[in-house]
This record gives sequence, structure tokens and C-alpha cells, in this order.
Amino acid sequence: MRPAELEALAAAEAAAAAVRGTTSPNPPVGAAIVDAAGRTVGVGATRPAGGAHAEVMALAEAGEHARGGTAVVTLEPCNHTGHTGPCTHALVDAGIKRVVFARRDPNPVAGGGAEWLRGQGVEVVHPEPDELPAPTLDPWLTAVAAGRPAVTLKFAQTLDGFTAAADGTSRWITGPEARRAVHADRAHRDAIIVGTGTVLADDPRLSARRDDGTEYDHQPRRVVVGTREVPAGHHLAGVCEQYPDIDTALTELWESGARDVLVEGGAGLAAGFVAAGAVDFVQAYLAPKLLGAGHPVLGRPLTETLAGAFEFETTGVRRLGADVLVEGRVARRRRATGENP
Amino acid sequence: MRPAELEALAAAEAAAAAVRGTTSPNPPVGAAIVDAAGRTVGVGATRPAGGAHAEVMALAEAGEHARGGTAVVTLEPCNHTGHTGPCTHALVDAGIKRVVFARRDPNPVAGGGAEWLRGQGVEVVHPEPDELPAPTLDPWLTAVAAGRPAVTLKFAQTLDGFTAAADGTSRWITGPEARRAVHADRAHRDAIIVGTGTVLADDPRLSARRDDGTEYDHQPRRVVVGTREVPAGHHLAGVCEQYPDIDTALTELWESGARDVLVEGGAGLAAGFVAAGAVDFVQAYLAPKLLGAGHPVLGRPLTETLAGAFEFETTGVRRLGADVLVEGRVARRRRATGENP
Repeated sequence: MRPAELEALAAAEAAAAAVRGTTSPNPPVGAAIVDAAGRTVGVGATRPAGGAHAEVMALAEAGEHARGGTAVVTLEPCNHTGHTGPCTHALVDAGIKRVVFARRDPNPVAGGGAEWLRGQGVEVVHPEPDELPAPTLDPWLTAVAAGRPAVTLKFAQTLDGFTAAADGTSRWITGPEARRAVHADRAHRDAIIVGTGTVLADDPRLSARRDDGTEYDHQPRRVVVGTREVPAGHHLAGVCEQYPDIDTALTELWESGARDVLVEGGAGLAAGFVAAGAVDFVQAYLAPKLLGAGHPVLGRPLTETLAGAFEFETTGVRRLGADVLVEGRVARRRRATGENP
Repeated sequence: MRPAELEALAAAEAAAAAVRGTTSPNPPVGAAIVDAAGRTVGVGATRPAGGAHAEVMALAEAGEHARGGTAVVTLEPCNHTGHTGPCTHALVDAGIKRVVFARRDPNPVAGGGAEWLRGQGVEVVHPEPDELPAPTLDPWLTAVAAGRPAVTLKFAQTLDGFTAAADGTSRWITGPEARRAVHADRAHRDAIIVGTGTVLADDPRLSARRDDGTEYDHQPRRVVVGTREVPAGHHLAGVCEQYPDIDTALTELWESGARDVLVEGGAGLAAGFVAAGAVDFVQAYLAPKLLGAGHPVLGRPLTETLAGAFEFETTGVRRLGADVLVEGRVARRRRATGENP
């Protein structure tokens, strides 16, 4: 990897992060073209499903400057014809001489791009293990490996673990910066899932809104899990999908193209997802407060003993105004998928 | 403030941090001498009580290089004769022409140093409000303002707020890096306080130990609060002080010179300190685990409603291996102390 390529990868990743949530079932990929002098001459990201892939968008911006240059892509360029032609061919046609990519494509249909490119005399660089940063792809890769949408469990709590006080008050545990982050994050998800208890108790809208109340362009699907009816007049009535249980919800979401979903509670549903082994990522917004007692994050015990705790790996810690966001991911053996065990 | 002086202040603060816990009832102060060319020519920190102050230590290292130079000190130089002579006089005698300090001395007996120095023609710089970093002084300043030791409430918990599982298992919630940080921190405190319940349940040693089991030079006083007897044969038997209640403990600790103490639990004692308004700082070690149920941080509810929560300000967030340390301080109106309201 050359320094100019690392910079280009950062630009590609940023472009991918901006389109996260709009590309499913396709992955949110970013690409950048570096010319022979080391200048980034084109950056692009996947268009919504059916639209152009990241490589094609970046090549279009680069134009003739791509000839003899390097393509830096967050995912291995695809080698098959779907709604669009193979990106591998587009790269060769544009005169790209070197391709650097961060993550291998686990899809046996779309994969094989690296091999085909090498056969065309293109230099292909893919550091192993996955040492290049491409976090925006994590949920999609997790989903493809699991055969269901990647699930992020999100909760906001006092530092001592309560999502609401004993009397049920929970507005606002966290401050404006944390709430802003939650809404911006919702705008990059395929769906938000809540239980019927939360619908009945809080009547949430689950939309992604800016501070001024306007909605982001991309809105997640609103999903309710449970058998109780969403009452007429509630914000979600008529705009949500409802499934009787977690398994059905995940299956239907996967089959309808969702790859990256957020579980926002309540405590019973959160415990159900954890107990089902269906939590891949954790987002905990922590307010600098202690209550001593109140409503817990999970609605029921997972275990009687510490060794049985649900464990994850901390991937990030960030201050958001007065609050702290702790992010994590659950370590998991990758399922064998086709040629990429 | 000149850039060289900011660098010198960082060196002074580091020197102070190294002696934290060994200077009580005196404050852990750091000082550095900058010569006319902007070089740091001496650094020092307060010696144990009865020993030299930071300025004198830094001047000793600087020697003749101090003449015409600047003294950068974390606390306003003292102006009275105690075990040692006034630092203000030592600075003038050494030919210091400029003094920069980060925090005003709230002690009406020791204070007044800035004014006296100005009267001797020394240029004195003290940015207001307290914008220069001198966090090592925070506990001592808090203690002097409160008239009791500054109290840090420390706990280690799963992310969802449990210090132990339902069956009582709690070793090890946090990993080796967090445990190492806890021991290093203990080595910089005047005392560690636990309740009798913790003594009976866990038989702790409360010593400050390195990874290899050896003890740090400075060991905190071991303090037990409660009326049940520490059983013979327990680690603390014969080495701890015991007081019947929180008020008595804080009064006795203050009068015997403690300024900076750590409350390590259990949950009943922690709740007692919070309810008494006697918590100034919070240290929460968070393990990336969820239990769903278990032993809470505080042994009883502080409030029924969110508006009654115990609130603090987040001052730092740090990853320690797999775990996260969240640090905070409780905002408090300063008590009027003599001439410094």
C-alpha cells in the first residue's frame, strides 16, 4: 500500500459511509481512483440497488485520468453481470493497472474479481488479514455470513444500567448530541425494530429526523415484533410492518433485502434478540447519571453466573456532549459461504 | 502563556501526578523552571508532608539557571512558614522574574503568594477562569473546599450495570488492564474505604500491587465502615481502621490528614455515600458484557424518577484493553473559604 492509496481508501470509505443504508441488498461500497502521480482523481459509492456500483461512479468522475491509474475499493470488484455489468471489466476498459481492495467479496456469484483481474495483467493488492479500514462494510459482511440481516442492539441508559427510572420516566436520559447521533444513525439503516410493548408505552415514530424536525431523505423501515395490535391513531399505525416473532421478522427482512437493522427495544425484545444469538453489534449510549434502581436494559436474566454473560468486543468509545457512546461487535465464527470459508 | 511555559506546565503536572497520594495533607504540586531561552531547566514535585515544596525541588535542580527565569507551578506559591519557609521567598531569592501558576491557593493562611510576589516586582500570570490543566490538584482542592476528604466512587460493572452475577460471581468482570489501572490508582490515594459487607463477602486486601504481586511503595490506608467486626484471619484484620458510619469516617480521615480517598463498595456503602452528598468523583470500569440481572452498583434506589438522578460531568473516557473507563466529577458550588469565595 502506498500513502496516496491509504488516503484514497479513506475517501472511498467516507463515500461509502454517506450512502450506508440506501444500497441494500447491495453492499455500501466506496471506490477512489488514484492517477500515476498519486492524485485522487475520482471518488464514488454504490448507487441504490439497480444503480451503478462504486467503481463505475469513481471511474466516471476520473474520466481519462483513470488510464494507467490505481483503483482503491473497499470491497473486491464484482465479476458478474447483474443489473449492471461486471466492475472488473469496467476497470480494465478504463485502463486501470492496479487495484487495491480492503475486503474480499464473500459472494460466490459476484466474487472471483481479483483472480480475473490478475488474468488481465492487472496488479491486485489485498492485504490479509483484513487490516485495511472498511468498517462501513461490517454489517453487510456480517449479514451475508449469517444469512439474515446484521442486528445492532441500541440502548440509552444511565451509567448504572437503567433505561428509565422506577416511575417509567426516560426523557431525556441522554442529551441532544446523543439524540442527534441516534437520528443520524437511523437514517443509515434498513429497518428499526421495536416490540409491541414499546409501541404501546411510548408511541414512537422511529423516523430519522434532524434537529429542526425535518426528516432525512432515507427513512428506515419501521418494524414491530409481537402479536398485540398497533392501535389506530398511534404514530406507527399504517406505516409499520409487523411480525409475530424475532425469527419471522429476520427471515422476512432478509428476503425483502434488508441487511442492516437496528433493535431499539424494549427490554423484553432486546433480551429475546440476545438470547436468540441474533445480536451482532452493540451501541450503548451512557448518560453520566446514577439511579440505583429502575428499568433494566434487558427484560430478563441471561444467566445466573458471570461465565454465562453475553460478551462482545469494544470497537469504539466516543463522547457525545455529556454522554458516552460505547460501540461493540460480537465475535463470531464465520459461516462457510461458498468458496470463502 | 508562552509555548515553552505550557510545555513546562505539562512536565510540572506529570511530576505532581507521580507523587499524588504521598503528600497529604499537603497538595501534590508540580513546578518547573524555564530559563530565559525557553528551556526547562528544573522540574520538581512536593515531597511527603514536612518535606520540601515543589518550587524548592525544581529550583534545586535548576541551580544558577533559574536566575532571570520563569517558575511554572500548578498551585499558587505559598507565602507562609510551616515546616518549610515560604516558596515565594525561595523564588525571589533564586532570581525568578516571572511566575505562572494554574490554580489559586484557597488556603487563607498559605495564600496571598501572588500578591506578595507582585510587590517584589515579579511578573505573575494566572489565567482566569482555571483554564490551565492541573487535574492532579482537583481532589485536594475539592477536599479543602468541602472540609472533608475528596471522595471518588469506584466500581467495575458489566455494561448493563451489574457488579456481579446473580450467584455473586464477579471475578473477573474486567480484564487485566483495568485491574492494573485500579492498583496503580490505589497507590496514589490516601485511603480506600469499603463496607463491612464487602469485607465479610470478599475478604479483600485493598493493597496496591503490581502484576508480579509486589506492593507499590505507597499503600493507602485501609478503612472499613460499619459496626460488624472484621473477623480474625481476614486480610484486613489488624491492618484496617474501622468507623461506625460514613460521617465519622470522613471526619476522622480529614483530621488525620487524608484528602483523597476511594470508595470501592459494596453497593450499600456506595449508595450511602451518594445519598449523603459525599461523592465528588466517579470512576466506572465497564466490561463489554451483558448479564440481564445481577447485583446492582448501588444497593438501594436513589429516586423514583429520572429528574432525581445523581448526576455528574464526564471528564474522561479511556479504553483499557477490552474494557472502558468512564471518569466524572460532580459539579458543586464551591464553599466560601476565607478570602477566596
